[in-house]
Amino acid sequence: MPFKAVVFDAYGTLYDVQSVAAVTEQAFPGHGDIITQLWRIKQLEYTWLRSLMQRYEDFAVVTHDSLVYTLRVLGLRTDAATLDRIIAKYLDLDPYPDARAALAAMKDRRLAILSNGSPAMLDGLAKASGFDTLLDAVISVDARKIFKPSPQAYALIEETLGLAPSEVLFVSSNPWDVCGAKAFGLNVAWIERVSPEAMAAACLETDLVAPLTLFKALRTQMDELGFAPDYRIAALSELPEIVTTHEP
Amino acid sequence: MPFKAVVFDAYGTLYDVQSVAAVTEQAFPGHGDIITQLWRIKQLEYTWLRSLMQRYEDFAVVTHDSLVYTLRVLGLRTDAATLDRIIAKYLDLDPYPDARAALAAMKDRRLAILSNGSPAMLDGLAKASGFDTLLDAVISVDARKIFKPSPQAYALIEETLGLAPSEVLFVSSNPWDVCGAKAFGLNVAWIERVSPEAMAAACLETDLVAPLTLFKALRTQMDELGFAPDYRIAALSELPEIVTTHEP
Repeated sequence: MPFKAVVFDAYGTLYDVQSVAAVTEQAFPGHGDIITQLWRIKQLEYTWLRSLMQRYEDFAVVTHDSLVYTLRVLGLRTDAATLDRIIAKYLDLDPYPDARAALAAMKDRRLAILSNGSPAMLDGLAKASGFDTLLDAVISVDARKIFKPSPQAYALIEETLGLAPSEVLFVSSNPWDVCGAKAFGLNVAWIERVSPEAMAAACLETDLVAPLTLFKALRTQMDELGFAPDYRIAALSELPEIVTTHEP
Repeated sequence: MPFKAVVFDAYGTLYDVQSVAAVTEQAFPGHGDIITQLWRIKQLEYTWLRSLMQRYEDFAVVTHDSLVYTLRVLGLRTDAATLDRIIAKYLDLDPYPDARAALAAMKDRRLAILSNGSPAMLDGLAKASGFDTLLDAVISVDARKIFKPSPQAYALIEETLGLAPSEVLFVSSNPWDVCGAKAFGLNVAWIERVSPEAMAAACLETDLVAPLTLFKALRTQMDELGFAPDYRIAALSELPEIVTTHEP
């Protein structure tokens, strides 16, 4: 029995979170990349911490607060208008170049997003990228007030699409999301955007490891959480063949 | 009514996690500090992720797995004996120099540890440092199979000591732990080991921000989680005066 639905993570999977770097670089010349990396790490930490503390606030709040933290720690002064301008880019992230074609090629399956983003953020992204016309559902964890990788978040796929986890292929570039989805029982394809060889080579090529390399390492290399993806792919463009030729 | 008990976080609060750097440096010359920082970040991430995934494994497992991740990502080869030697240091971390005197000066209150560490790891630490004779209780979150900052972890203080959160002063250097304890209702003293001014100065003094500075920033600067400590102190040596002169 083939996969009946393909469900995508949004941030870092369909949409390039690093595309905010151009805006942060414009606001804080010389610091664009480091702000973007630190912001992303703290944004994720806050989703996990707030979930564990049972103090959920939606992803718009977490995204704002983690940017405030990042600028404060780096000693960068800002104002509300600059903050708003940077955060606005989060509603209009660049899709990965192969995202549209991959979605279009799998239109014979049900297609959806399951994301930590708030409903307003996700609707904005789907409209800005034009993916709203290709997707059958845009599912926000906000319905359960807890973030991934809680099982309650992944359970929203079945509640929304009426399909069992075994009938669904979940796609994410985020290692922790891959492990969470596997622990829940979904079939999972991991987009491995940086190979271990490339990462290790970059880490060892200089005496002082570049901070951006290490921050990327933290986000792109598979975690040691006792789970492994069913499929490892290098890009979204490999998905249509997997969906056509493999069965769960 | 004065504080009836003072309860300490262990890792980074009473015991210096960075004291493993000497051992990692010996095993991997030139990489000691970066291994230690990356290891600590992943160790914490795995406690939060496993808690959220409802896939608890104790802190010994998480500590091992996060070290395996760190060495793999840095492209460093190792063997079981080296891994064991590094991890053994985690059972014998150096206490902060002022920890013993601070504990001894507060012996008229009940004193305890509440830590993510497994019972075996914490007993080892307490014995190796000799703090076992000063502490009334060593509490491991393992009793609830979930890590801090879950409220279930902090609830173990009342269950063990029979004291309400309002009667307890909780002490941690970890910003996320401070926020979790405040959210739960404890009185909290935060050990701010690196001032914001020192951090911002270090971050801006070079064009390329040093990775160690940034990793430390991630762990030493107060988080934006909607909570603030009741007391900010620079060292454990300030605690006896707070306990004597303040009331919850």
